[in-house]
This record gives sequence, C-alpha cells and structure tokens, in this order.
Amino acid sequence: VAASGLAVGVDVGGTKLASALVSSDGTIIDRRRDDTPADDPDAVVDLVADVVTAFAARHGIARMPVGLGAPGAVDATGTVRYAPNVAFANYPLRERLEERLSGPVVVDNDGNIAAWAEFVRGAGRDARDAMVMLTVGTGVGGGLVLGGALTRGAHGYAAEFGHLIVAEGGPPCPCGNRGCLEAVASGTAIGRRAEERRSAGDLPEDSLLWRPGRLSGKDVTVAAFEGDAAAAEVIAEAGFWLGVGIASLVNALDPELVVVGGGAMQAGDLLLDPARAACKERVMGARFRAVPTVQRALLADDAGVIGGALLALDLAGAG
Amino acid sequence: VAASGLAVGVDVGGTKLASALVSSDGTIIDRRRDDTPADDPDAVVDLVADVVTAFAARHGIARMPVGLGAPGAVDATGTVRYAPNVAFANYPLRERLEERLSGPVVVDNDGNIAAWAEFVRGAGRDARDAMVMLTVGTGVGGGLVLGGALTRGAHGYAAEFGHLIVAEGGPPCPCGNRGCLEAVASGTAIGRRAEERRSAGDLPEDSLLWRPGRLSGKDVTVAAFEGDAAAAEVIAEAGFWLGVGIASLVNALDPELVVVGGGAMQAGDLLLDPARAACKERVMGARFRAVPTVQRALLADDAGVIGGALLALDLAGAG
Repeated sequence: VAASGLAVGVDVGGTKLASALVSSDGTIIDRRRDDTPADDPDAVVDLVADVVTAFAARHGIARMPVGLGAPGAVDATGTVRYAPNVAFANYPLRERLEERLSGPVVVDNDGNIAAWAEFVRGAGRDARDAMVMLTVGTGVGGGLVLGGALTRGAHGYAAEFGHLIVAEGGPPCPCGNRGCLEAVASGTAIGRRAEERRSAGDLPEDSLLWRPGRLSGKDVTVAAFEGDAAAAEVIAEAGFWLGVGIASLVNALDPELVVVGGGAMQAGDLLLDPARAACKERVMGARFRAVPTVQRALLADDAGVIGGALLALDLAGAG
Repeated sequence: VAASGLAVGVDVGGTKLASALVSSDGTIIDRRRDDTPADDPDAVVDLVADVVTAFAARHGIARMPVGLGAPGAVDATGTVRYAPNVAFANYPLRERLEERLSGPVVVDNDGNIAAWAEFVRGAGRDARDAMVMLTVGTGVGGGLVLGGALTRGAHGYAAEFGHLIVAEGGPPCPCGNRGCLEAVASGTAIGRRAEERRSAGDLPEDSLLWRPGRLSGKDVTVAAFEGDAAAAEVIAEAGFWLGVGIASLVNALDPELVVVGGGAMQAGDLLLDPARAACKERVMGARFRAVPTVQRALLADDAGVIGGALLALDLAGAG
C-alpha cells in the first residue's frame, strides 16, 4: 500500500466526472464532482490531473495512486478502445495520465470497478470467491469476480453482460444487435417499452404514462411508485428479462451471489423481485444446491470512486 | 509431477467407461474401454480400481495419480451431487476412490476435463489465458479456462453452458426449463427438430428424413452428408442457436478462442459455419477488436482421458 494509505478514485461518466479521496478501508475522505468534457479526451486528462493535484494539496499528500473507471471498452494496457458516451477512441488514457501524475494509475471499465467495490466493501463483502454484478442504468454493464479477483478476459473486454442475448430477434440494442439484455432490461428499454404501450393505446385510461413526450426509465419508475399498474408491469417485464440473463450467468459462472446496481435500481424490488423469480425458475440444479441470492448493490453512486481507489491501492501495494 | 510422469485418465460416460494411461505430454500409452455399471456407483468405483491396478501391473508402476471425469454436477470435494445418466446422487466419488487407490485422485465434471485437455494439448494449445469450450452431444456441456486455469465457480458448477437460455419460452430442456442451449442445439435437439418437421409434413418429397422411427442427431447428420437439404437445414438451425450462445459467452468472458467438441461435431462445418456466422454478427465490439475464432476440438473422444490424466498430474505435482 502506498505510503499515505489513500488513493483517488475517479468515475468518468458521460456527463459528470465524480472523484474522491478514499482510504484503504473504502471510506471517502473528500469528494468532488465536475462536468465531463466528453468531446475532448485530452481535456479529461487535464481535469483528472487537476483533481488529483487539488486533493493532494488540500490533504498534504505528495504522491497517490489513482484508479479511474471509464465507460466503454478498456484493454489490458488501459487504452480506451471505444466508449459510447465519451470521445475516447483508442485513447491511451492510462499512459496519458501517468505522464501527468506522479503515482501509479489504474484504468478499467466502470462496470469492473463498481463490481470490485461491491465485492470488497459492498453487497459482496462476505463472499470469498465469485460474484456477478450487473449495473442497470441507461445501458447494462457488468463486472465479474472469480477466484477472489476481477476477471477481465483475454483482452479486458469480459463482463459485457448487457450484451448477453436473451431475446434473440427482439428490440434493437445500441450495440447494433437485437435482443441483448440491455435492449430489454435497461432504464432506456423501460422508457421505450412504456412509449410503445402508449403508442399502441395499451394503457389503462387513468395511467400516468399517457402524458406526452419521451418517457425515461425514471419517469416509469416514478409512475409505478405512484401506483400506476401499467408502469409497474413495464418494470416487471424488464425485471423478468434481467432474471433470464442472471440465470444464464449463474449457470455459466456459479457465483456466490449476484449484485444489481445502477440507476434503474431506483425501482428497487419492482425490478428485482420479478428478476429473482425468473432466475430461480431457470437456474440449473435447484434440486441439489441453493440458488445464489440476487441482491441490491450497497454503494450506489459511490461504487465507482471507491472501487477505483481500492483497485489503485491494491495494485500500488502489489507493484 | 509423480515419479513415473504417468497418470490414469478415466472418462465415465452413461454407457462406456473409457480409461487410458497417459504421459505428461498427453500421449496415450495404453487404453481400455469397459461398460459403465451406470446403476451402481460402488461398482463404478470397483471398476476404476481394477482398471488402475491393471494398468499399474502391466506397466510396472507402483503408484499413479488418477483423474476422472464424471457427467454431472461435481462439487469442490469431488462429490457427484447429481448426474443425468449415472446413478450418482451426492456420491463422494473422490473419497471412495482414494480409499481404494494409493495415488492422489481428481474428480471433476467431464466438460471441465475435456476443456483442460483441449487447452493444454488440443485446439487451445496456443492460447495463454482464456478459452471457452462447448461439448455438443446428447446434451451440451462446457468447460471454462480463465487466467490459464480451469474455472469452476464458487461450488464447482460453473460452465454449464448448455443451460444458457438462448430461446426463452422455446423447446423443453431435460433440466426442466425451456429454451436452454441444450434444448435447441444438442444432438438430441437436432433429432427432435427433424421429427417435428416430419410430423408437420414440412419436408421435401424426396427427403431421407421421411423414414419411420426415431431420428437421432446422427441420423440427421448422415442424411445431410448424403445431400438431404432438409437435414442440412435442421443442423444449420442448431448451429445458429449455438452461435447465439457462443456470442453471449464471448461478450461475457472475452476468451481467446471458442472450441466446440462432442458427438454432434460429426456434422462438422454444417453445424459450425452457421454458428460462426451467428456469433460474428452478435459479438460486441467487432468494430474495435477481432472476434475470437470458433474452432473444432482436436482430441475427439480422447479429450476426457487425456484431460483427466493431465489434471491429475498437475495436482499431484502441485501437492
């Protein structure tokens, strides 16, 4: 572990860049939030360098490891090959950051980093070996812990659980395919499905979903909590598909538990209970073993900054 | 590695028990084949003890590690929790074998063992880190190598790739669910689909599939090689679903390659080409990375005995 036992975790979102100074037990000491300069990768590097420098100055630390989660495909060298919401294209983010910072830098996919935080300090903290995490928001991301370590696959692209094909031939996915888990279970999918039902006139007369304009997953969730039955149905349908995908992951990976986080978890058990039911029916071997539990993530929006910092501390300690 | 550098690999099938004396480079020195006493687990133990004793006597070896692949769910202690075709039910196979044999014993799922053989000595021998294997026969099994090692999950039940849900609500699977990969892409599924087309009259007048009686996957394969278009279509349909499942596995696990073995591979590229096409269309990130190749297994029926022996030698060497 680095001298101070502190690290900076950075969570680069499509609109916001969250950062925090974190201790080795996962406690957030200080935090800040900036707008992401999403169309300029070099400006992202400048901003992260400023953030780290500011934390270091304010807390009198000379040198800290930095762990950054990026949305998209991050290869084993910390190059962001592609990101859906930030203008990274084969951008060597880790290398650029190391040129600007004095400490070691870790760059990883944001789903991996959130999973690591949940495994070490969140919903998976009692697990020893294997955890599957899904992050359900605008899209569906994931992270995979096997043998007590993050599993990144051969090139760093593992755990793209949003692109399990659960409904072959189904709704289009931003990735270009159809029927991906992301296309039927993300917040975006929830909003789109509600709009479809509205267009088809397939809503009760008093449904809150009749209101004009686009419907987001959040709109549908708010309506469901206000008692709108159609909104709850749309969320339950997304939850069903989530459970189908989770069952496939349990059969393929045999985790101790499955953790679900992300913005769509504002729907809570309206989403998770149908997922749990669909999963339980489909997990193989329920006759001879316990089906892993499907649990809510505990760290919410902080998983990214905590996971980034913990990963950076681990690698700094090992290196 | 044990003194002799030799081990016995045993592949317990539903009808045949194959065994071989294998050297540390995967060469088969001697082999035999017996009927599996499938309704009596203790008789399986007796038979394996006889086989090992006979190999040891014939080759003048005092003590050898033994690696055994069992069809079904094998937990981390080598207990067979459940097997579809042999009467193992919570049967402590490894413990019973160790009571009878002088060397160390490894018991694992047959899909894991075949995958290990292909990774070390077969189609994956040039891979370093990550390989997905599917065994397509009566059912669909699997094995998973990550970080250069077999990945068994938290309890030993990982890699049940036959129970990825690819066609939710589709044909029934022996596991009790519907739409599992095994229900649409196994040899059994190929035979059943051909029978369905026959029952529905959905075959050309001159199709070889009109013949009465049950149709196996092998029957359909033979007909396809004799130029029967409907038979080739049925195999291609299974291959399509296989490719859908493989795409999900690539997105979830990022392997260097995917290996397909098992009896249904007698259909060769009639099965694999449609699988490759369906996979390629559905793998995420084809714009920034190479899609892993989908290759035939190389060790055919010997994967079980070779993998069992190699795994036993590894563990004996490590222990």
